Amino acid sequence: MTEKEFFMKKAIAAAKRAAKCDEVPVGAVIVKDGKIIATANNRKERENCAVFHAEIVAVRKACKKLNNWYLDGCEVYVTLEPCPMCAGALINSRLDKLYFGAYDPKAGCCGSLCNLVEDKRFNHNLKVEGGVLREECAELLSSYFKNKRAENKAAKERKQGE
Amino acid sequence: MTEKEFFMKKAIAAAKRAAKCDEVPVGAVIVKDGKIIATANNRKERENCAVFHAEIVAVRKACKKLNNWYLDGCEVYVTLEPCPMCAGALINSRLDKLYFGAYDPKAGCCGSLCNLVEDKRFNHNLKVEGGVLREECAELLSSYFKNKRAENKAAKERKQGE
Repeated sequence: MTEKEFFMKKAIAAAKRAAKCDEVPVGAVIVKDGKIIATANNRKERENCAVFHAEIVAVRKACKKLNNWYLDGCEVYVTLEPCPMCAGALINSRLDKLYFGAYDPKAGCCGSLCNLVEDKRFNHNLKVEGGVLREECAELLSSYFKNKRAENKAAKERKQGE
Repeated sequence: MTEKEFFMKKAIAAAKRAAKCDEVPVGAVIVKDGKIIATANNRKERENCAVFHAEIVAVRKACKKLNNWYLDGCEVYVTLEPCPMCAGALINSRLDKLYFGAYDPKAGCCGSLCNLVEDKRFNHNLKVEGGVLREECAELLSSYFKNKRAENKAAKERKQGE
């Protein structure tokens, strides 16, 4: 296993914890000098607030850990291509590099719909590598939504049978 | 004073409170049914984390107030054009409309560098009106940075005189 696969596996483990709490399974880890300084998963449902994507929670944890808002020298590994909010948070926090797993053709802004993190007009850019353990990351999401649809269908049928 | 000017004045008051705490003066309010449900200012320095822009803090407060992540029927007033992170947070949180004051040619993503909140490829859009009390909002920022430069210059001179 390569180093980037090792860290993506950690992000996948975080995403699986999110799924157990009925959150869309996305996980992120932030690494500095070869060590994980923050691990987080999507907490939107638990916090009842759409700001709490995995990347945002990870950035907050990393800032606390380093006691610094300026996360230079840091790399982030996330199971899904960041949305505009999260891409912006990574730019604002000055991380060096982004590795992501699955591409997000509906909201991804790091290569799919646009590429904010490499847009030279901003005062900071991140290097990007997408598709790290891509299939495993995508499978996490597709099986979560498949189960969700089955649950909703079963609940509907129970209701009709009452 | 029009209604939108009234609410922008409230955002300006929040921005002024930020400046007193040595934060870049940006303020935001979120309004639902003609009432303010959240007021916030930039807290990046205080929280030591670049995620804590005024809009993000305001969205969190509004979600807590309504006990809902889905802020439909809400309008946000912010003194500065949102950056990609904040534009994305407004999309994710499903607000109806954005009013902003000063344009931000360096990082603004609601008309200046691009227009994320009106990009039809996302699953939600906000209506946008920029330039509400534009000069007053811009003056807040320019006087803050002017003072900051003067302070830095004076500190440098003191150091050289030691």
